Amino acid sequence: MTAGVAFRKGHGTGNDFVLLPDAAFDPSPEQVRRLTDRRHGIGGDGVLRVVRTVDATEPEVQAQADRATWFMDYRNADGSLAQMCGNGARLFARHLVDSGLEAAGDFVIATRGGARAVRVPESGDVEVEMGKAAFSRSDVVPQVRVGDQTWPTVAVFLPNPHAVTFVDDLAEAGPLIDAPQVEPPEAFPDGVNVEFVVTKGPMYVAMRVHERGVGETQSCGTGAAAVMFAAAIRDAAPTEVTYAVDVPGGRVWVRRDRDSVLTLIGPVEFVAEGTIAETLLAD
Amino acid sequence: MTAGVAFRKGHGTGNDFVLLPDAAFDPSPEQVRRLTDRRHGIGGDGVLRVVRTVDATEPEVQAQADRATWFMDYRNADGSLAQMCGNGARLFARHLVDSGLEAAGDFVIATRGGARAVRVPESGDVEVEMGKAAFSRSDVVPQVRVGDQTWPTVAVFLPNPHAVTFVDDLAEAGPLIDAPQVEPPEAFPDGVNVEFVVTKGPMYVAMRVHERGVGETQSCGTGAAAVMFAAAIRDAAPTEVTYAVDVPGGRVWVRRDRDSVLTLIGPVEFVAEGTIAETLLAD
Repeated sequence: MTAGVAFRKGHGTGNDFVLLPDAAFDPSPEQVRRLTDRRHGIGGDGVLRVVRTVDATEPEVQAQADRATWFMDYRNADGSLAQMCGNGARLFARHLVDSGLEAAGDFVIATRGGARAVRVPESGDVEVEMGKAAFSRSDVVPQVRVGDQTWPTVAVFLPNPHAVTFVDDLAEAGPLIDAPQVEPPEAFPDGVNVEFVVTKGPMYVAMRVHERGVGETQSCGTGAAAVMFAAAIRDAAPTEVTYAVDVPGGRVWVRRDRDSVLTLIGPVEFVAEGTIAETLLAD
Repeated sequence: MTAGVAFRKGHGTGNDFVLLPDAAFDPSPEQVRRLTDRRHGIGGDGVLRVVRTVDATEPEVQAQADRATWFMDYRNADGSLAQMCGNGARLFARHLVDSGLEAAGDFVIATRGGARAVRVPESGDVEVEMGKAAFSRSDVVPQVRVGDQTWPTVAVFLPNPHAVTFVDDLAEAGPLIDAPQVEPPEAFPDGVNVEFVVTKGPMYVAMRVHERGVGETQSCGTGAAAVMFAAAIRDAAPTEVTYAVDVPGGRVWVRRDRDSVLTLIGPVEFVAEGTIAETLLAD
């Protein structure tokens, strides 16, 4: 057996992560790519490193230390730094309670995207504040294109860009091997996450998501929030309302509060924990 | 943190496995599917359970106890039982040495496909005997078809069926989303693994493989052996010869001995170990 660095693996609705409970290990981008490789490594959509906020190297994170004791140092699977990840934040918050670093209940975590309120009951679904959403101000209705099909779409920013596309059947867009095209391209100068959405019932939708730079995924927290935002306005729903959102990997809920802040709610699960082999991390 | 069943995760050239070192845990097919799920579980192409050969429930495995102390109880990711897996056997054999259950060197493991000789040095590549290969006796040259392209192919049995297809460029067959068609279908009544092969140099080939019922994979031990068998005959190579075979997940070698037995040789790596959360295994 091998000695090595501690890890936990877990997921929120199929959006999965390698969590590093010990901040003493600060992986290089290459080490992140090895950890998240699904066949040569442990596998995951990203890495969540648990860091004391006061120890963060970025000043805009350190500035959150008066509100948040713990910083979610999130890395994308390609090794790059990321601002925020709704499902990752929910798993991260559950870990803090599991390991006694925070008491169950309401607390705040620090992220590169700003301090975020979380709610972690003793057991069950975990909530994370996702902020407010906004429509684009464009006069043109953008269109999503897959092959020779097009649909009108709704541009939602959270603040990352989403093209929320209501369809009659989630299978309409086919297997989504390639990224859907959005026209005009100026509508989303930084690329876009594309959600296809069907209505399943009152305050209940189902979606598929193609994440920019990633491909079709099992779940996307900001995507679910953007979809709920667009659906609630379409439905002229009351201000304070909760929608169920089925994603390919499970079901989440999105709540809109009085102040229009969106909150992502859903299950998380840790599936394994142990140590990473030193050989996987060696140069 | 959670208590739970012990596991190790590792791979041979990207063919990856969840190894269960404690035979006291005998997973149901549903538990195997959960363990091997790449997003809701730990993830792997299969499960390797370490069992004393004398404790095996199958009489044809127990009968190997005079030669092999340990039985590789291999399960496919879909929960079904499997006979043999070359890359899995190499990882399994390395585990036996890592954990002190066998001394480094030559020994034999029991499998549902019969007792297999392995060679596990103190460090470095692990070898496993793959048996003898045979051509089909058909008078018709079968053809592999992808879209509107066809190639003549060579039927090799090890004993599982392979269509070894020499091409000029591994990209020729495209992305292999669907299984290649083989004509006439009677050539392979039980389905077939299809290998596309290019020559890279003397005794050096590269391959892609589409495994029946699985899809395109990073590596396939019997596929590499079938490819080497076909290439060595095409090349009129000496009886005792070793080929390097590049697979998408790395490089293996296949040796043909004086008695025509093929041996698969290559790297294996354990990447993590620890415990599986009880919630993942619960009903």
